Amino acid sequence: MDGDANIKMDEAALMAFLDTHFLQVKGEFIVEEVTDDGVTVRLDVAERHLRPGGTVSGPTMFALADVGAYLAILSRIGPVALAVTTNCSIDFMRKPAPDAPLRCETRLLKLGRVLAVCDVLIFSEGVVEAVARASLTYSIPPR
Amino acid sequence: MDGDANIKMDEAALMAFLDTHFLQVKGEFIVEEVTDDGVTVRLDVAERHLRPGGTVSGPTMFALADVGAYLAILSRIGPVALAVTTNCSIDFMRKPAPDAPLRCETRLLKLGRVLAVCDVLIFSEGVVEAVARASLTYSIPPR
Amino acid sequence: MDGDANIKMDEAALMAFLDTHFLQVKGEFIVEEVTDDGVTVRLDVAERHLRPGGTVSGPTMFALADVGAYLAILSRIGPVALAVTTNCSIDFMRKPAPDAPLRCETRLLKLGRVLAVCDVLIFSEGVVEAVARASLTYSIPPR
Amino acid sequence: MDGDANIKMDEAALMAFLDTHFLQVKGEFIVEEVTDDGVTVRLDVAERHLRPGGTVSGPTMFALADVGAYLAILSRIGPVALAVTTNCSIDFMRKPAPDAPLRCETRLLKLGRVLAVCDVLIFSEGVVEAVARASLTYSIPPR
Repeated sequence: MDGDANIKMDEAALMAFLDTHFLQVKGEFIVEEVTDDGVTVRLDVAERHLRPGGTVSGPTMFALADVGAYLAILSRIGPVALAVTTNCSIDFMRKPAPDAPLRCETRLLKLGRVLAVCDVLIFSEGVVEAVARASLTYSIPPR
Repeated sequence: MDGDANIKMDEAALMAFLDTHFLQVKGEFIVEEVTDDGVTVRLDVAERHLRPGGTVSGPTMFALADVGAYLAILSRIGPVALAVTTNCSIDFMRKPAPDAPLRCETRLLKLGRVLAVCDVLIFSEGVVEAVARASLTYSIPPR
Repeated sequence: MDGDANIKMDEAALMAFLDTHFLQVKGEFIVEEVTDDGVTVRLDVAERHLRPGGTVSGPTMFALADVGAYLAILSRIGPVALAVTTNCSIDFMRKPAPDAPLRCETRLLKLGRVLAVCDVLIFSEGVVEAVARASLTYSIPPR
Repeated sequence: MDGDANIKMDEAALMAFLDTHFLQVKGEFIVEEVTDDGVTVRLDVAERHLRPGGTVSGPTMFALADVGAYLAILSRIGPVALAVTTNCSIDFMRKPAPDAPLRCETRLLKLGRVLAVCDVLIFSEGVVEAVARASLTYSIPPR
């Protein structure tokens, strides 16, 4: 990725960072793996994530995609960064199961000087095809 | 709007619908006005909506845009609808104030047989320019 | 617009800039008006813009939205800029007439230090509602 | 893919379809391969595709992404379809080479009853990373 693909934070470091800096979502997201081109993050769906009809809410899936992209970037640039989301385009394609975890696979497509671009697939355990896809742009501060 | 712009639900009807069917977000969103081409919805920002540095979180603004679009559609097609979000593209443009309400102005651009398209501007009280914009597509069931 | 809303290029200056620097699309786009918050650009639809069934092609409408956003930015920062599109989200909502001009109304929502965001409505003469909407982000070089 | 992943049109059939129905872009796009989950389409970049500074124009890359998604859908539903693009979100990430072909790899993520969703990566020969990514939604007529 743009000559800077070295991994600067592993799973434990990303989890510790989340727990320290994102108190409002403490315990919500589990970093499963730092992969070759991104990260995999899990969300254990609970009652508070649901909408009428047993659907996982859109904001819940958006939040998962956003955290997945953020952690993919941090895993490559380290915990000093103050990256902010500037754009997200998300497609909701299938209904996730109401009682199964969601798994977000993030792929870092560009890690530039000022912008980073990720794409994301979200899977619901037990459903073969992705339930959602998203692409996100982050603005990253000078390093 | 495609020959079906008559208002079928007013502010009170939309609020009652939210409170009955969206228990998880009860009290979160206030329908301020059903306008000529959409609705205006308010969110009173609280501690739980914030991120480090006092920024309102992305998922909070996504949720507000999503509700704004949903209610704009319901205001025109009535409470029987089971519309679902299929796509959202959102741009975060400025930092909202951490202690001021957000106001979401939704404009219904298309209300078709199977798809509806809205765009949304989100304002933070005290900031002149919009802090975010979004466009959303909903799939609407046969009427 | 971020303290820099003064108009630096008027209609004639934008047209001259297009004709000089964009030879491949010379004569394609007409700058109709530099407005309070953007520009209006016209495209006279011709045979080469059509697709089977007499629809104006998607790339034609994308090109119009992209030029509209570019010129809205240049009208505020002047001809020295080398802005590049980084993202576009576009919704095709209705079929334009095959033999009527398209009119693109661009609104500059943010003109920041490194990013500019515009939104766009495209109208087909004789159709009341917008046929397409788009939002675009440009990366702008240091001024 | 939603129980309908059988290939209905191969490379030759897709090329023949393009040449017959899309006269305005005849010869522009080459179907290289119908893949397990989509298609690969090539564009040989020529002078008319360029912008100042030797960049391939945005509309050219949009057109390639749009054709790639369209052909991926047709390859699975056959030539009878009258699918139309309803949304595209595209990110321009790197400058393509001005004198090398572009290759568009499309992945069909959903092929539903009324909507299909694809994502696309565009590569410029000689550049390792993708130069653009896009996601597209098509509305497909009743089959």
